[in-house]
Amino acid sequence: MSAGTRETAGPPLVAAPHQDGVDAAVAAARRVVEALLAAGDDTSLDMGAVAAQLHAVADTLEEHAPERTRRLARMWEGEGVNRHDPVTGPENALAPPLTLHGVDDGSITGTVTLGLPYQGPPGHVHGGISALLLDHTLGVANHWGGPSGMTAELTLRYRRPTPLFEPLTITGRQVSVDGRRIRTVGAISAGGKECVTAEGLFITKELPRPQ
Amino acid sequence: MSAGTRETAGPPLVAAPHQDGVDAAVAAARRVVEALLAAGDDTSLDMGAVAAQLHAVADTLEEHAPERTRRLARMWEGEGVNRHDPVTGPENALAPPLTLHGVDDGSITGTVTLGLPYQGPPGHVHGGISALLLDHTLGVANHWGGPSGMTAELTLRYRRPTPLFEPLTITGRQVSVDGRRIRTVGAISAGGKECVTAEGLFITKELPRPQ
Repeated sequence: MSAGTRETAGPPLVAAPHQDGVDAAVAAARRVVEALLAAGDDTSLDMGAVAAQLHAVADTLEEHAPERTRRLARMWEGEGVNRHDPVTGPENALAPPLTLHGVDDGSITGTVTLGLPYQGPPGHVHGGISALLLDHTLGVANHWGGPSGMTAELTLRYRRPTPLFEPLTITGRQVSVDGRRIRTVGAISAGGKECVTAEGLFITKELPRPQ
Repeated sequence: MSAGTRETAGPPLVAAPHQDGVDAAVAAARRVVEALLAAGDDTSLDMGAVAAQLHAVADTLEEHAPERTRRLARMWEGEGVNRHDPVTGPENALAPPLTLHGVDDGSITGTVTLGLPYQGPPGHVHGGISALLLDHTLGVANHWGGPSGMTAELTLRYRRPTPLFEPLTITGRQVSVDGRRIRTVGAISAGGKECVTAEGLFITKELPRPQ
């Protein structure tokens, strides 16, 4: 997108979180994950009691969980496909979650602010977390822009440290398709400056869905 | 490591989780994150009640958390440095956590089994999660093998899908130092076969620690 044009972002390309059900419980779990890092060991809290409360929640969930094979099959049915990944998934507390929108020019874009769970160097985003966000964004860009595939090669260039606690813009765009070889690029920017850029080579192939 | 020699793995290069305190609460939070994915929306559970229980835990933790600037300074003091990252950190529920050991030949190695939170393609590890684990492992390999630095460039090659629910071996090794430029390689293997390999270029530089 050039500086002179403002493209219109379309509807989300990833699953939108519900305000209830498992998505609401996962949103609460994200708060717990971040608050544990915020509290750390520098506290007068009874962490044994916190652990006991969390184990009790996990016990209840595990008692009600279907057998793994059945759960995997269910995950990969219909719209379930986009609900559990560690980047955009409303059912996955590891995911910030990032919401990505298609843009009219064929690219995709999203904005996210990352907190303590995503820290690498002091006050900055872990380089591997940037790689995780970009790998996923490039995959979604393929879905939006043309044929999709699995990552064969991914190169990340770290141009400046990526800040925590500030809005980051994440973009992706499929740039070429040559037979089964797809090339896709992306970037993470803060304050209008690129922090990390990515180039991916994807091969058109999909793993079978569990039955 | 050649097939004919068995190197001795040394002490852990990353923080060992405690069995109590915040580490125990974080271990319980990991169970919650995984159990939420295992239960999904395919359950008779009252997810509103689960959300309320988790919000109550988060409220308590947040009330006791120090102010962010003070918490960041504390995180980066002494041994705190290795306790909160999203790969090995005992205080970070995003981390599996991976434990890495130094090997006599200058390389490092660790074993980890990943569950539902780390899923990308059906039944397999997300490519971005492999990137996250390898970026961090290469950084730790630098600490073990020679000078350390910040990631400038990272290239990942995906050779075969990486399975969930099976032990993965993760290795890293610093291969050269040329002035400020450090080159480091690593791999994730399953059942003796390489799934993902990584090459990183690091530059000797550190971000200042918060005061």
